[in-house]
Amino acid sequence: VTTIALGPGAEFDRIRGIARALGNRARDLGDDCALIPEESTVLALSTDLSIEGVHFRREWLSPEEIGWRAASAALSDLAAEGAAALGLLAAIAAPRDVPAADFEAVSRGIGDAVAAAGGLVLGGDLSTAPVWIVAITVVGRTERPVRRSGARPGDGLWVTGKVGGAGAAVTLWKAGAQPDPQSRTAFVHPVARIREGEWLARHRATAMMDLSDGLAGDAWHLAAASGVRLEIRLDDLPLEPGVAEAARRVGMAPGEFGAQGGEDYELLVALPPSFGPQDVRSFMAAHDLSLTRIGTAVEGSGVVMTLESREVALTGFDHFA
Amino acid sequence: VTTIALGPGAEFDRIRGIARALGNRARDLGDDCALIPEESTVLALSTDLSIEGVHFRREWLSPEEIGWRAASAALSDLAAEGAAALGLLAAIAAPRDVPAADFEAVSRGIGDAVAAAGGLVLGGDLSTAPVWIVAITVVGRTERPVRRSGARPGDGLWVTGKVGGAGAAVTLWKAGAQPDPQSRTAFVHPVARIREGEWLARHRATAMMDLSDGLAGDAWHLAAASGVRLEIRLDDLPLEPGVAEAARRVGMAPGEFGAQGGEDYELLVALPPSFGPQDVRSFMAAHDLSLTRIGTAVEGSGVVMTLESREVALTGFDHFA
Repeated sequence: VTTIALGPGAEFDRIRGIARALGNRARDLGDDCALIPEESTVLALSTDLSIEGVHFRREWLSPEEIGWRAASAALSDLAAEGAAALGLLAAIAAPRDVPAADFEAVSRGIGDAVAAAGGLVLGGDLSTAPVWIVAITVVGRTERPVRRSGARPGDGLWVTGKVGGAGAAVTLWKAGAQPDPQSRTAFVHPVARIREGEWLARHRATAMMDLSDGLAGDAWHLAAASGVRLEIRLDDLPLEPGVAEAARRVGMAPGEFGAQGGEDYELLVALPPSFGPQDVRSFMAAHDLSLTRIGTAVEGSGVVMTLESREVALTGFDHFA
Repeated sequence: VTTIALGPGAEFDRIRGIARALGNRARDLGDDCALIPEESTVLALSTDLSIEGVHFRREWLSPEEIGWRAASAALSDLAAEGAAALGLLAAIAAPRDVPAADFEAVSRGIGDAVAAAGGLVLGGDLSTAPVWIVAITVVGRTERPVRRSGARPGDGLWVTGKVGGAGAAVTLWKAGAQPDPQSRTAFVHPVARIREGEWLARHRATAMMDLSDGLAGDAWHLAAASGVRLEIRLDDLPLEPGVAEAARRVGMAPGEFGAQGGEDYELLVALPPSFGPQDVRSFMAAHDLSLTRIGTAVEGSGVVMTLESREVALTGFDHFA
C-alpha cells in the first residue's frame, strides 16, 4: 500500500491525490529516492524534470550549465539517501531547430556532473519539444539508505554548506540585475553532495533529505516523515554572501530569504546527540565544506522557525501554489 | 568507452554525436535498456519521454490514455530485453491550470499499465510545464538480457502481433477523420509485450527490440548492432485491418505503410533456425497473440525490404528528419 508523509502545500496535495489514485499500484512514495532491495545492497532511484521557463531560462544558463544543473539536481537525491552514484539516464528534448552542437553541450554538462559524482551516463532518450526539457533518472546503491523518516526527539538538525545563493541569483536576474559570482555559481553549477551524504550515512545520520524546495518547505517533509517537531533557529542558518543583497531587494531578513530559497541542493540531516565537535571537524576536513547545526528534533509535529527569538511563518517553493 | 551501433537518420546522428561528446563518461548506449549487473541477475532500465504536440495531441487521448500510453511505451523497452517489470518512476508536468483530477487520471493510466505489466509505481516528480510531459523510467530484472546485438546469419526474423494500427490512427486523425476502433486502440492503449518478451528470451531469442519508430527504421538498428544483413518480405508483415484505408489515403501499399508506421510496440525478434512450428504454436497458445516470420538474417549489413519481389526504400520515424 502507498505510504506518503509530506508537508503542506498545493504541490504536495497533488502528490497525495496521485498516491490515493494509485492505491495499491504504488509503493512507498515520498522519500528522496525509490528504494529497491538487492541481494546485499539497496538500489536507489530518483527522477527529476528540468524544464525551460519553469526551472530555468535560457538567458541564465549556457547549454552545458543546463545539463550540469539538471543532472546535479537529480544526483542530489542519491546524496540524500547516502547512496553512491552508479549513473543516470538522460531524456533530452528541445525545439527542432536547436543545433546538434547544443544537444552535445547539454550532454557534456550532464556527463561532467555524473562523472564528478562518480557515475556514468547509462542511457537516455531524445525528442523534439516546444522548450528545452531534461528529464534525469539517477541510479545509486547503498548498504543502508538514510530515509526522511528516522529522526528522533533529541537529534540535532544540521545543514551542509551554505544556502540561499541560488535563490539570490534568481531574484537578481528577475530584477534585471546581475548576481554576484558566488550566487550565480550556486544556481548554474550546484554540486550534488554524494560523498558528504555517504559520510553522514556512515556517521549515524538518522534522517536526511536535500534542500531542493527551500528549508522552509523541505523541513516539513522531514518532520512529517519522522513524526517529530523540528525547532529551527534561522539565526544559525549559514548563508551565501549574496543573500544579503537579494533579501534587501525583496524586503526580507537574510535568514528568512535563506530559508525560503530553494535549489541549493545542500543536505538537511538529523544526527544523534552523540554527534559532537570532533565529528564536525572530521566532516569539514574530509569535504572542505561546513556542517552547521541549525536546530533540534523534539516530540510533536510540524516545524517552528525562529529568527531573533521571534517565530516566523514561511513556506518553501510550490509549483502549484 | 561508449559503444553505439544504430541505423541511419538525423535523430541517430544526434545520438552518435552525443555519445562522442560523452566519451568515457558514458557506457554501452544504444540498446533498448541500460543494463546493470547485480549479484545474480541484471537490472534493466530505460527512460522515455511523451510530450503533448510531439507524441500525442490532447484531442486524441483522454488523461488516462496519456498515462497508459506513455507507461506502456516505456515498459515495452523492458519487454525488448526479455526482462520482468519491477516498476517505474513517473515524472509528470502540465500547465498550472490543469485540474488536480487530470493529474490523478494520468497517474491512474500509468498505474494501470504498470500493474498490467506486473510492476508498481515506485516514485516520480511533479512540475508545471507549457504542455503535458510524461517522462517514464522503467526498472526491470532478467537473468539473461536479450540485446539487439545477438542475431546470427541464418536466424529467422519474427514479429509479435500486428503492426500499422497506431500509424493508421494518426493518419486518419491528421486527415480530420476518425480511425476504426482497432486502430484507435493500437494508438491509445498499446500493450507492452512483457510476458511475450520473457517467453522469447527463454526460447532461444538471439536479438530483440521493440518496434517504436517503425520496422523500416528499427530493423536497421538491429542489423547494425548484430553485424548482419536483414532480408524482410513485407508481403508477410501482419497488418492491423485499419492499415488498408490509411495506406490508401497516403498513396502507399499497405505493407509499406505497416513497415513505416511506428508506435505499435510489438517485438521484433531474431530466433535460431531450430525455432519451428511447434514453438510458434506454443507461443500463440501461451499469449493469444500471433508470432509471424517476416525475414531472415544473412551475412552482410543493412536491411533489404521487398514487396511483391520488388525492393522498397523506406525509413522509420525520425524526430529530426
